[in-house]
Amino acid sequence: MTFEIPEPDERARSAARERLDGLVKPLGSLGRLEELAAWLCAAHGAVPPRPLDDVRVVVFAGDHGVAASGVSAYPREITAAMVRVFLAGTSGVNVLAEQVGARVRVLDIAVDGDLSDVPAEVRAHRVRAGSGAIDRSDALGPDEARRAFDTGRAIADEELDSGADLLIPGDMGIGNTTVAAALVAGALGLPADDVVGTGTGVDEAGRARKVTVVAAALARAGARVSDPFDLLTALGSACAAATAGFLVRSAERGVPVLLDGVFSGAAALVAREIAPGAQRWWLAGHRSTEPSQAYALKALGLEPILDLGLRLGEGSGAVQAVPVLRNARAVLAGMGSLADL
Amino acid sequence: MTFEIPEPDERARSAARERLDGLVKPLGSLGRLEELAAWLCAAHGAVPPRPLDDVRVVVFAGDHGVAASGVSAYPREITAAMVRVFLAGTSGVNVLAEQVGARVRVLDIAVDGDLSDVPAEVRAHRVRAGSGAIDRSDALGPDEARRAFDTGRAIADEELDSGADLLIPGDMGIGNTTVAAALVAGALGLPADDVVGTGTGVDEAGRARKVTVVAAALARAGARVSDPFDLLTALGSACAAATAGFLVRSAERGVPVLLDGVFSGAAALVAREIAPGAQRWWLAGHRSTEPSQAYALKALGLEPILDLGLRLGEGSGAVQAVPVLRNARAVLAGMGSLADL
Repeated sequence: MTFEIPEPDERARSAARERLDGLVKPLGSLGRLEELAAWLCAAHGAVPPRPLDDVRVVVFAGDHGVAASGVSAYPREITAAMVRVFLAGTSGVNVLAEQVGARVRVLDIAVDGDLSDVPAEVRAHRVRAGSGAIDRSDALGPDEARRAFDTGRAIADEELDSGADLLIPGDMGIGNTTVAAALVAGALGLPADDVVGTGTGVDEAGRARKVTVVAAALARAGARVSDPFDLLTALGSACAAATAGFLVRSAERGVPVLLDGVFSGAAALVAREIAPGAQRWWLAGHRSTEPSQAYALKALGLEPILDLGLRLGEGSGAVQAVPVLRNARAVLAGMGSLADL
Repeated sequence: MTFEIPEPDERARSAARERLDGLVKPLGSLGRLEELAAWLCAAHGAVPPRPLDDVRVVVFAGDHGVAASGVSAYPREITAAMVRVFLAGTSGVNVLAEQVGARVRVLDIAVDGDLSDVPAEVRAHRVRAGSGAIDRSDALGPDEARRAFDTGRAIADEELDSGADLLIPGDMGIGNTTVAAALVAGALGLPADDVVGTGTGVDEAGRARKVTVVAAALARAGARVSDPFDLLTALGSACAAATAGFLVRSAERGVPVLLDGVFSGAAALVAREIAPGAQRWWLAGHRSTEPSQAYALKALGLEPILDLGLRLGEGSGAVQAVPVLRNARAVLAGMGSLADL
C-alpha cells in the first residue's frame, strides 16, 4: 500500500521568504512567525496563504485495555462519560476551540461502554469496543489496524469535503498515554523508561507500573515493531490507527494538520512510516509534558509552536496554536513594505 | 517618592485554584493556563475574572543618541518614519493587534526628527528630541527622567480612564536595545558582554561595538546605577522613563500589564526599583532573543508566555499572548465540573 503525498510548493515558499524580507521590520525579526508564514504559503501554493477560517477538531474517543493494569489516575469509565461532556460542549477543548471559532466533533472509535444514548453520527465510525491490554495481548485483531486506519482516512475526507482549512486530531481515552509511549518506543527502538511519563497524573509508583507494562508490551511485540501496521496491531489501539489514517489522508489531500500532544504525536510517527513525506503537511501545536511526545516530534523534525505545560489532550494544545498560524498569515497579508518607508 | 501598589486578591486566587481543581480535566493538566487563570482572578478579585475585551498597545517612540555610535543595523531616521507606519496601520504590531481586537496608539515621546505633519495628539506627550549618547553623556537632563516618568503615568491614566482592561507597552526607537542592555546591566550589576545581543540584526562586529558602548556607559555612570532615577538619567532615555511610569501607574491602579520584549523588560526592572511590588501586576508576554530581557525577567520573577524567537519590539510579542490570557479566563468561565461527570 503506497500513498501519494503531494510536495508543498517550494516556489511559493521562496516567494514568501522574499516578501517577508521586504516587510517593514528588521530581517527575520518575526522569528517563528516568518517560518510558519512561509510554510503556509508552500502548503497553499499562494502568497499570502488563504485564511484559516474553517478549523476542525476531531476527537477520537476510545478505550485502551491497558487501563486495567493500573497505568492511569482514572478508571476506564471516564472515556464514555467524557464523550457526553464533549457533546455538551463543556470540555476543555470545546471551550478553547470556541475562542478561535473552531468546530469540535467527537467520534466513538472504540469506547468500551454504553453510549447507546448519544446521536448516531457519533458512533458512525465505531471500529470496536476498547482494545487489548498491550502487555498481555495484541491491541487489535487481524486486519483491524487497517480497518481503523481506513476509518480515519474516511473521517478526514468528510471534514475536507465539507470545507475544512485546517485539521486538528484530538484524543480521549483513559490509558492512551501508555499506548502512545509504547508506540514511540517501538517505532524508535527506545527503552520503556525513556518514554514513559506521568500521563494524567500518576505518582511515581504509577509511572513504574507504566514502565513495566510498556516493557512487557515491547518484549511481546518483538520484531513486529518494524512494520507500522503490525506495530499498531501489537501496541496501538483503534484510536491510534484511526488517527494515523486521518493524518495520512490530510497529507494526501495537501491540507495542513496541527498535531496536538503525545497521542497524535505517536500516531504521526507511525503514520509517517506508512506514508513517508506525510509529515511535510503537519505542524506541532504544542509541547506536551510527556517525554514520548518529545521523542516523536524530534524524529519527525517538528518543533512545537507553544509550550504551556499542557497534558490534557483532546486537541486542547493544538487549538491554542491556531492564533499563531493566523498571525503568521496576517503579517504577510497586512504589513507594509520597507520600500514605502 | 513612594507609590501605593495594591495587593492582588489572594482569596480570589485560592478560590480560582479550587475551582480549577474541580473542572472536568485531570488535576493541573492545563499547565500554564491554570496559573494564568488564578493570576487573573487575583488581579480582578473575581472568579472567573472579567473578560479582557479592551486591550491597548501604547507604542513609546523616541530616539536614543547612542544610535550614532554604530550599534544598530538601521539609521536614526527610521524612528520617525516608523511613527508614520504605525499611523498608517501597517506595522507589525498594528496587524497583530487587529487579530485580537486590540487598539494601537503611537506616541512621539522623544523622536529626533520632523513629525510636524502627524496629528497633534501623537505629539501631546513629547518630552524632548532624542536622548544623549549614553557612552559619552547622560541620556537625560536634570529632572527629565522624573518628567518622562510622570508623562508615562499620565498616559496610563488616559488609557485606564477610558476603559482599558489590559495594557501593553510597545517601543519604537533605533538604538533602544543598547539602552535596554545598559539599564539591565546597571540595575543588576552585570558586565556588558553578558547582556548585549544583536538587536535588530547587527553582525559580530556590530555586537562588539555595542559591548564597548555599554561598557563605557556603565563606567561613566558609576555608582549612580543604584538609584533608579539616576540610572534612567545616566543610561536610559525619555522612552525608558516614560515606559517605567506607565508600568508603575498600571500597577498602582491594579490593572494587568503584558510586558513585551527587551525594552519593556528593562523599563520594568527599573520600575520595580521605583515601586517595589509593582511587578505583581505584570506578566511577560514573550521571550525575546535579547539576553538582557532574560536577565530582567528572571530578576522580576516572570516567565514568558510565548517563545517565538521574536525581536521586533513594538509590542508585537505581547499582543500575541493575549489569546492565551483569554483562554485562561475561558476555561475557568466555561468548562464543566468533574462533579457532573
